[in-house]
Amino acid sequence: MSGSVPLAMDVAQINAFLEREFPQIGIGRDFIVEEVGPLSARLRLVYDVRHLRPGGTMSGPSMFALADVGIWVAILAQVGPLPLIVTTNLNINFLRLPEPTDLVAEMKVFKLGKRLAVGEALLYSAGGSREPVAHATGTYSIPPR
Amino acid sequence: MSGSVPLAMDVAQINAFLEREFPQIGIGRDFIVEEVGPLSARLRLVYDVRHLRPGGTMSGPSMFALADVGIWVAILAQVGPLPLIVTTNLNINFLRLPEPTDLVAEMKVFKLGKRLAVGEALLYSAGGSREPVAHATGTYSIPPR
Amino acid sequence: MSGSVPLAMDVAQINAFLEREFPQIGIGRDFIVEEVGPLSARLRLVYDVRHLRPGGTMSGPSMFALADVGIWVAILAQVGPLPLIVTTNLNINFLRLPEPTDLVAEMKVFKLGKRLAVGEALLYSAGGSREPVAHATGTYSIPPR
Amino acid sequence: MSGSVPLAMDVAQINAFLEREFPQIGIGRDFIVEEVGPLSARLRLVYDVRHLRPGGTMSGPSMFALADVGIWVAILAQVGPLPLIVTTNLNINFLRLPEPTDLVAEMKVFKLGKRLAVGEALLYSAGGSREPVAHATGTYSIPPR
Repeated sequence: MSGSVPLAMDVAQINAFLEREFPQIGIGRDFIVEEVGPLSARLRLVYDVRHLRPGGTMSGPSMFALADVGIWVAILAQVGPLPLIVTTNLNINFLRLPEPTDLVAEMKVFKLGKRLAVGEALLYSAGGSREPVAHATGTYSIPPR
Repeated sequence: MSGSVPLAMDVAQINAFLEREFPQIGIGRDFIVEEVGPLSARLRLVYDVRHLRPGGTMSGPSMFALADVGIWVAILAQVGPLPLIVTTNLNINFLRLPEPTDLVAEMKVFKLGKRLAVGEALLYSAGGSREPVAHATGTYSIPPR
Repeated sequence: MSGSVPLAMDVAQINAFLEREFPQIGIGRDFIVEEVGPLSARLRLVYDVRHLRPGGTMSGPSMFALADVGIWVAILAQVGPLPLIVTTNLNINFLRLPEPTDLVAEMKVFKLGKRLAVGEALLYSAGGSREPVAHATGTYSIPPR
Repeated sequence: MSGSVPLAMDVAQINAFLEREFPQIGIGRDFIVEEVGPLSARLRLVYDVRHLRPGGTMSGPSMFALADVGIWVAILAQVGPLPLIVTTNLNINFLRLPEPTDLVAEMKVFKLGKRLAVGEALLYSAGGSREPVAHATGTYSIPPR
């Protein structure tokens, strides 16, 4: 996308990998990988009534899933199609009630080590203000290669 | 259940409140409130293929949802049917891959303040070893009464 | 510093407030408030052998303290000299071993509510690479006004 | 005190290891290892005016340090004197303002993997009520052996 370090996978390669290996996640249906870049990614959670919670806002588990998938995709884009990367810790702060519309998550990767990767996700309501609705940090275990 | 401080709601009252006010959560279908007590609760997530992730283990968002609903129910049992308690922070550590079976969560409430309540959830595979598959702590904002 | 929303306190006012009300913190000695802005702040932890841990890197408690004081100062700059703002949650990821030199923390405030404020701190070794050594998010309880 | 799995180090061995390898921590002066057991430990932070924060309560960084050292000691007791175990994540909830007196921390280890260990610390004011003043969970990276 930019920068001098080549990405291990672009958006098309990530989509193909996820649809083939992880069909349960709903890439291309629930989640859209919009962009990947050096230590970054942007994903969209497509609005659906299944994602609503009481009061008509997007639910906590849906926001958790977007942040978790988002940071994981940002890591995959850097390291390539490793099948066994797993979340070991996720901390999420819910900041505002999100509108009943798509959610967009912008990810940064803080650390890409041999054994652990750490990143963050900032979640916004699509088309809304730039005030984030949630912030998450996640740690992922990378298998020996 | 025991102890000298009376609970604000027992299991039957919590189930009736949640089914009436929060039908989206799936209490009685996805989640079973098994027990509530002084500063404690136990919930079960009923196994369903919808809760699986790649590899056949229970998914991260399902474990997150169980911990989040579980701590919230433990707080409700103490304070009564307040409709506007919301999660402000949830931190979850994934410890082991859970079996493809029911998950049981045991909650404790550490603090029950006027404005904030804090609790934890320890998650186990039902019928399995006593080694926890995940641990979460959550903070909940309690509305002015 | 910029933007259309006036700050409640500038760097000089924050320094005066902290030195008068919280002399134990060591503002002006251990911690330097370098800049405050709209929903942001930058602080420095001055190197001292007291902040070292085994191996000669800056210690975890010192990094925790810098992140905690840093987010708190960023909030104070927005809301003014309220004496009773307290930390309710702090989550910190240690990313790399910091050099035995000053640490710089850059803070952003994600939410500034009536009862809770949430922000983040990214910590770097002064004069080093732009790779962060730690990232923290913190929640602060704001007293009724 | 112990079950069927032998501990790798008892209290005397841990104290000797920490005093020799990590004199900066202040084991035996600031921190007392009171007990270690299977997947557990109990430590004490000795009251000192250096640990106070404004208002006369024990400071956040001191509580962070007690939780961090406490979980680390609980892991050391299980795995033996490995020098390179480092904290990768620590999440702490501050629940009540602690009294200006010793703090006691009770630790449990949730997971003891080849690469990562995860545990919790519950902190109390010594001699006070059994209401915890803080709760922390921590993740530690274990070096290859």
